[in-house]
Amino acid sequence: MEERISLAHGDGGELANQLIKELFIEAFGHREEAKLDAAILSLKAEKIAISTDSFVVHPIFFPGGNIGKLAVTGTVNDLAVSGAVPLYLTVGFIIEEGLSIYELREIVNSIAAEAKKAQVKIIAGDTKVVEKGKAEGVYINTTGLGVINRQQLHPETITVGDSVIISGTIGDHAIAILSARGELGIQTDLESDCASLNLMIQNVLQSTEHVKIMRDPTRGGLATSLVEISEDFNVTIELEETSLPIKEQVDGVCQILGYEPIYLANEGKVIFIVDSKDEQLVLSILQQHPLGKNARVIGKVKENTKSGLLMRTALGSTRRLDRLTGILLPRIC
Amino acid sequence: MEERISLAHGDGGELANQLIKELFIEAFGHREEAKLDAAILSLKAEKIAISTDSFVVHPIFFPGGNIGKLAVTGTVNDLAVSGAVPLYLTVGFIIEEGLSIYELREIVNSIAAEAKKAQVKIIAGDTKVVEKGKAEGVYINTTGLGVINRQQLHPETITVGDSVIISGTIGDHAIAILSARGELGIQTDLESDCASLNLMIQNVLQSTEHVKIMRDPTRGGLATSLVEISEDFNVTIELEETSLPIKEQVDGVCQILGYEPIYLANEGKVIFIVDSKDEQLVLSILQQHPLGKNARVIGKVKENTKSGLLMRTALGSTRRLDRLTGILLPRIC
Repeated sequence: MEERISLAHGDGGELANQLIKELFIEAFGHREEAKLDAAILSLKAEKIAISTDSFVVHPIFFPGGNIGKLAVTGTVNDLAVSGAVPLYLTVGFIIEEGLSIYELREIVNSIAAEAKKAQVKIIAGDTKVVEKGKAEGVYINTTGLGVINRQQLHPETITVGDSVIISGTIGDHAIAILSARGELGIQTDLESDCASLNLMIQNVLQSTEHVKIMRDPTRGGLATSLVEISEDFNVTIELEETSLPIKEQVDGVCQILGYEPIYLANEGKVIFIVDSKDEQLVLSILQQHPLGKNARVIGKVKENTKSGLLMRTALGSTRRLDRLTGILLPRIC
Repeated sequence: MEERISLAHGDGGELANQLIKELFIEAFGHREEAKLDAAILSLKAEKIAISTDSFVVHPIFFPGGNIGKLAVTGTVNDLAVSGAVPLYLTVGFIIEEGLSIYELREIVNSIAAEAKKAQVKIIAGDTKVVEKGKAEGVYINTTGLGVINRQQLHPETITVGDSVIISGTIGDHAIAILSARGELGIQTDLESDCASLNLMIQNVLQSTEHVKIMRDPTRGGLATSLVEISEDFNVTIELEETSLPIKEQVDGVCQILGYEPIYLANEGKVIFIVDSKDEQLVLSILQQHPLGKNARVIGKVKENTKSGLLMRTALGSTRRLDRLTGILLPRIC
């Protein structure tokens, strides 16, 4: 196989065939499915969940992962926080001409490894190649399919007193990426938190029926996810600033550069809103899992009216938080 | 709404929210599904088919369609030729900073219109924005879900004497795109053939149980699709060059520039391999449909051994055809 991707690798001809057979099918093991233009599955379930996400992160390799791992964890988590058991992923590559096949192989192997870890199967793929300069190494779309055999989330029952829990420290992904780009002017040894959360989430859902809703606070961060919940389900949520789990290095960078951690993207964290009577149960299940050891209760549902998201600061005052407005942060996703 | 897409439209914050609510949900009508990170469906079927495809065509507007229409027809056709009834699509946009919102709206409306025509529903979406120059206007991924309630294709029974049928003229899409780019040095008024073929294909499958396999000959063209069938199912296929339906303008361009129409991409054509006893039935059903009026029998399965794809030329000699090798054609997809 040649050392770099050429336009011919994307034209459906001989080189494309070689790439599919020697790299993708080898890594993903979907030989039979690849014989037709669509993969065929037997899937019996009460309900099916579908989610799609495109990944354009740069650099494509970063501390804690690469774009391939992220493309798996991102879609797995979208399914998992919807209450589904993720089962299948499709992967679409848009590759920049000139990408080294060595790097592509690394990315493909990361996809295969993370899929195995998250217990999902890659069932269909697609490869396009664009001219040099028309992508940033590679863009990846993943679309995921999961099953819901019992309705476990009850967002319509969110009410005053419910507890807001986050599974770990916030902002790690964003600061790791910005640092890897050399854009911070500050060196850190932070790693992206990108991880598939579905198995940990399944532990929680098997132990309680009182999870109202979950979200993975990626783009826009914790604050934007909670503003959306507040708007969609007509409640007011209040966070305790002093309860937010934030790594020292993330906090330090934010203080120097004026970022707010609650707006920073996470790729391995989940927000739960749960009935307060199961708050401690959920916390302890999370804390027993390596990905949830820093889980904390960070706030409460305060009112059954839509006054948005509030934060009680360390000084005891309360301020209102809006969505990310697009001028606060450099682009990360 | 601002007139051009900015990076902030892709950061998950306020502008992104506005774009989703005012443009995407308005056009696609998936308001409820958009409240969770995944769309939830009830889908009861014997089997489910999934296909994914990314679209990077440029120019993004071309005679006969645009990248949005193509993103629907491409995935609908992949499902349909797999014997599935396409039902749902997800759509992922990677938008270049600076794309006009007017153009994006045109593309989104084309997606909605073509989805309606093909009787599929858009159920989930995703939007990323990359820096100026890092995409060509917009790239779109669509992933499609269809159901198979009765196994209608029998590729394992392909055998000597089976007929090869194409639903219409070949090469229209490729030449229309090359012409629109101004790269041919020749003016044509050709339009892309991009069209959703699922309803026409359903007409065929409802009338006969003797379709062995179908393919949509996109990248790599008719020849590459037939080489793949030959390899995957161990048969030799022979085409009659004089039977190939080719528009005069396509033929003219090919003769001048040395392209071979059988390697040119199509986006609204389907290949059938059928038991010869149903050849005329399938032909007549196709010819009654506007998208199949130029359908023809173009060849036969010649041997039950894997000697690839042969073409009997107008002069009576026979030559062997390989996959597209990547040097014959400018990039089209």
